[in-house]
Amino acid sequence: MVKEAEPKPVAPDRQRPAQRGRLLQQLGFGVFRATEQTLTAFEGDLGRTFRRLRRRLFGVPLTTAQEAQERLTKVKGLAVLGSDNLSSSAYATEEIVRVLALAGAGVLSLTLPISFVLVGVLAIVVLSYHQVIRAYPGGGGSFLVSRVNLGDKAGLVAAAALMIDYVLTVAVSVAAGVQALTSVFPGLFELRVAIAAGAIVILALGNLRGIREAASLFVLPIYVYLAGMLGLLGYALFRWATGSLPTYTPPPDWAPAIAAPLSLMLILRAFSSGAVALTGVEAISNGVGVFKPSEQKNARITLTSMALLFAGIFLGLSFFAGHFGLLPDPAEKETLISQLIRLLVGPGWFHVVVQLSAAILLIVAANTAFTGFPRLAYVLANDDFMPHQFAGRGERLVFTTGILVLAGLAIFFVIAFQGSVTALILLYTLGVFVAFTLSQLGMVSHWRKVRQRGWRLGMSLNGVGAAVTGAIAIEAISVKFIHGAWMVLVFMPLLVLMMLAIRGHYTRLQRELALTPGDLLPKPARPQLVVMPVATMNKPFAEGLTYARSLSPNITCIHVAESMAAAEEFRRQWDQQGTGIPLITIESPYRNFLSPMLAYIDSVVQAAPETIVTVVIPEFVPKRWWEHLLHRQSAFRLKMALLHRPNVVVVDIPYLVKT
Amino acid sequence: MVKEAEPKPVAPDRQRPAQRGRLLQQLGFGVFRATEQTLTAFEGDLGRTFRRLRRRLFGVPLTTAQEAQERLTKVKGLAVLGSDNLSSSAYATEEIVRVLALAGAGVLSLTLPISFVLVGVLAIVVLSYHQVIRAYPGGGGSFLVSRVNLGDKAGLVAAAALMIDYVLTVAVSVAAGVQALTSVFPGLFELRVAIAAGAIVILALGNLRGIREAASLFVLPIYVYLAGMLGLLGYALFRWATGSLPTYTPPPDWAPAIAAPLSLMLILRAFSSGAVALTGVEAISNGVGVFKPSEQKNARITLTSMALLFAGIFLGLSFFAGHFGLLPDPAEKETLISQLIRLLVGPGWFHVVVQLSAAILLIVAANTAFTGFPRLAYVLANDDFMPHQFAGRGERLVFTTGILVLAGLAIFFVIAFQGSVTALILLYTLGVFVAFTLSQLGMVSHWRKVRQRGWRLGMSLNGVGAAVTGAIAIEAISVKFIHGAWMVLVFMPLLVLMMLAIRGHYTRLQRELALTPGDLLPKPARPQLVVMPVATMNKPFAEGLTYARSLSPNITCIHVAESMAAAEEFRRQWDQQGTGIPLITIESPYRNFLSPMLAYIDSVVQAAPETIVTVVIPEFVPKRWWEHLLHRQSAFRLKMALLHRPNVVVVDIPYLVKT
Repeated sequence: MVKEAEPKPVAPDRQRPAQRGRLLQQLGFGVFRATEQTLTAFEGDLGRTFRRLRRRLFGVPLTTAQEAQERLTKVKGLAVLGSDNLSSSAYATEEIVRVLALAGAGVLSLTLPISFVLVGVLAIVVLSYHQVIRAYPGGGGSFLVSRVNLGDKAGLVAAAALMIDYVLTVAVSVAAGVQALTSVFPGLFELRVAIAAGAIVILALGNLRGIREAASLFVLPIYVYLAGMLGLLGYALFRWATGSLPTYTPPPDWAPAIAAPLSLMLILRAFSSGAVALTGVEAISNGVGVFKPSEQKNARITLTSMALLFAGIFLGLSFFAGHFGLLPDPAEKETLISQLIRLLVGPGWFHVVVQLSAAILLIVAANTAFTGFPRLAYVLANDDFMPHQFAGRGERLVFTTGILVLAGLAIFFVIAFQGSVTALILLYTLGVFVAFTLSQLGMVSHWRKVRQRGWRLGMSLNGVGAAVTGAIAIEAISVKFIHGAWMVLVFMPLLVLMMLAIRGHYTRLQRELALTPGDLLPKPARPQLVVMPVATMNKPFAEGLTYARSLSPNITCIHVAESMAAAEEFRRQWDQQGTGIPLITIESPYRNFLSPMLAYIDSVVQAAPETIVTVVIPEFVPKRWWEHLLHRQSAFRLKMALLHRPNVVVVDIPYLVKT
Repeated sequence: MVKEAEPKPVAPDRQRPAQRGRLLQQLGFGVFRATEQTLTAFEGDLGRTFRRLRRRLFGVPLTTAQEAQERLTKVKGLAVLGSDNLSSSAYATEEIVRVLALAGAGVLSLTLPISFVLVGVLAIVVLSYHQVIRAYPGGGGSFLVSRVNLGDKAGLVAAAALMIDYVLTVAVSVAAGVQALTSVFPGLFELRVAIAAGAIVILALGNLRGIREAASLFVLPIYVYLAGMLGLLGYALFRWATGSLPTYTPPPDWAPAIAAPLSLMLILRAFSSGAVALTGVEAISNGVGVFKPSEQKNARITLTSMALLFAGIFLGLSFFAGHFGLLPDPAEKETLISQLIRLLVGPGWFHVVVQLSAAILLIVAANTAFTGFPRLAYVLANDDFMPHQFAGRGERLVFTTGILVLAGLAIFFVIAFQGSVTALILLYTLGVFVAFTLSQLGMVSHWRKVRQRGWRLGMSLNGVGAAVTGAIAIEAISVKFIHGAWMVLVFMPLLVLMMLAIRGHYTRLQRELALTPGDLLPKPARPQLVVMPVATMNKPFAEGLTYARSLSPNITCIHVAESMAAAEEFRRQWDQQGTGIPLITIESPYRNFLSPMLAYIDSVVQAAPETIVTVVIPEFVPKRWWEHLLHRQSAFRLKMALLHRPNVVVVDIPYLVKT
């Protein structure tokens, strides 16, 4: 790569646009490189202000070559990729309790056994994902694993499940975070939807800055939360061991009316709601590639640490929730954890610190989805299953479109469900378990094909994982169908169909547009007719006519007049000019300029289908912005109307007004 | 004019656009006429639905030749052009009373004397306008008369005053109409702003249908109102003559606290508020041209009838208001007329009918402004003082832009002043009297110049008119300045400056763009360079290249790549094709496509300032609408960015995808 001395860029100017040419750095004969100045050289005042704001919010642009530096340590990796799973410890217990409470306070002791089963499932899933990390050191998301091993359709189902899931992760986490906040500041309850939407916007902004900065932002709250929860549970265990635990009296209006008898169905529903405990486990195996080397080892250590921390907090909370018979707040204003802290420690700085860190953790847990969704959409877009816009990276190397779409959808769900965690959770876990199951099934198929060292163990582990998560997925559909899971069952196939349609479009297009040999070699040009609209005979028209004459000797000018008299008067002036060019006049009694012009041009195209009709449109460009408002933009409107016509080429001749 | 058999129009079709050619009716060699079908042939489904809705709302399109039929009889002319003045009888008395009441109920007997003075002024103004009709049989608005006789500046001041006035006419009339409505249905008071805005929208829709239909709509309420008011006053006179009038006790909380002593200033303020009685007098002389022949005679008869009717109602109301000592409703919920009816006749069908007809009359009185404002803007636009958009007429021959702008501004004022007639009226009369004065001064100058039969009488009458209206204008400024008239004094000069700036633009433009002899004759073409962006070598690019080859042998292709490796790979493929065309590659490390492309094109323009750089942009057009969403529109964005560059011609080559 030849690198020459870089000339100083010169500020651009409307009068001398040519100086902008120096903005490119010449690397060799016909080889140039754009610089950071190239980005900014073509902005107006408004653009410049916007860019300054953007730089302030998102930092300076990064070149593609700067990518490799954006990697994570284990400590930061746990914060970025583990926060989704760890944060669900803040509401998993509560969601179990909330279902069980339907059968009365007496059955709340079932909380701990259900939690133990869930931790057992978690262990199986974690072991399964260790196998994924082993098999796909570059990062093996459910989509990739399902698609490679089970085929496109299975991959797309997994992808659809994951996309729904990412959106709901953001909605649920942020809603739960706001709930942790309103536990300390009940006055904010009325504002919960606005706070949640604002939090999603802030998350999106953070992610538009880029992944490393995002991680730094999120490390502190997760470790404060972990320390707080482990401290709380340790203190509670100490008081339990010393027999000094207080007794719990719920607020009188919280006492649950017994809404349902205790049944297997109810226990299954409680289990299914508690299954949010497993969300986010796959994030680490998806993102092996973002760890610092050696990526695989770091990912496995982080995954195990995450599972152990989660299990400890979840079981501890479930134990004490069952022990005290804590009741859930029917209005979803105060969380179970907040009640527990107030009971054991009382209100005070500890309560505030733990709840705030939980709130921040939950809100930033949504960040896992902000890492996952755009990446998944990028992979899908590269395979033509999503619009190619999702494959483009912005100035800061992040997937701008994916981040914005995710934020928009999550805000929609938060508003639609009025920020209720319990309502959102009914839609949530189904997608998770569909993706789990397909991923584990894919791994089974993988091991059978590769048969490398340890394949039998891997296959067994993944087989068990697939069976367990598949069973939970089916269970979730059956018990939560009428409560909202049906929506997911409608959307998932629609998403798959959409992705297939998108792929169909790109495939058709590529096939149709592909070159055949010789297409680029010189060919006899098609016969050409030039058509020029003329409203007034003036300088812009004269410049256009000179250009038109250089294109072809076959020129026709068209004049649209409001009356026959005006048309005849124009023809008289035209004949005086002695151009020798034929003039067509069209009387337009309805005073419309555009449609008669289109009608005439189409008639020319019809008369000679082999001919290219070149429409030369002169256009004067006023000097001051407000002067544009004083013109009807007929030239521009004609241009827009002609853009998509077969055999019609539009030539735009600008005339820059100087005074 | 040759007229041939008209071929049946054929419905257009994307695949065979050529058939649209038959939509034009051929009248002779190179001479065509557009038909109504031409208007509709180029619509999509959405456009067609919108057109049907528009036709339903506004009627079928009219040709320019259909214009002459749109004339008014005296009866309809009084409704259309007289409603502004006549309707002010519904609130003029009340506004006098409202000011006098500030000095206590004792001074309300001054209402009648002040009204007599105002009717005297009205007589002078009407006589002055008779002279205007005599001198300007084609319609002599204040703008025309001032400009022709006193020069451009005076004309523009009159025009600015009139425009402000038209906007306020709509706002005040509609607000007063809504007040007449809330007098009968007090429950609607809270909705007054929404009702007023809705009424303005309906007026605008009516006017977009065209003037004749508008008149038919408005004839009934004005004659019902006139009959109702004359009946009421006749009945009151009868009871007064027979000594059987009841006594009036105002609601206890209306009794005015004495806020100001009786002073000359207060009487002048009352006079100035009552001067709304004179608004709208000029409408008939402005619109002489819309009457049926003989226009002048019809206009004069209508003007006199209007003045007599107005004076009768106004004096009658002022007499009885003073007689009873009627107090104004401080909340502006019930009108004075409504109180008078309830006092004399009691609530019942007569009360409802008169108030409703007053409400409708007041709302349609705004119609005078909907006739006047767009016409004035049209005249100004034809003289280059307003944007040319105001000079264009829509399908129904009405000045669409003027109607929409007037409606928008009036709605703004109604909202800003919360629909209060008293607050709006403080801004109102100043503009009226400025326009009156300038118009009468212009007439004085006119008579002195023409010296035709009766010029001395005309000049004297107009001189008296100028003196009286000028005195009232100065009086209005001094007594209402701090109450809101200052706003008008700020806006009026701003409007004049704006109109001068607009005229300046059009004049500069015309001077710069004017042809010099020989401009249209063949000249040697400027040297040409062709530049073609290439993202992928495909069919659309190949078609573009073939076209580019027909333009010039000097072609350069440019490829922007995200990395040097990608650029080198593209060059390798390029060389394989053997086109013989030089390729420029630009590495864009910030992944931006547009700015490197612009930087390169500008550098070419700089290197050869005498050359025309033609940028050939191939663009594929997907078949289905949603497929557009799957592409980044880089070609379109490049085209938009290049539109306004000197010496750069943009050529758009569409490629219509078939599958």
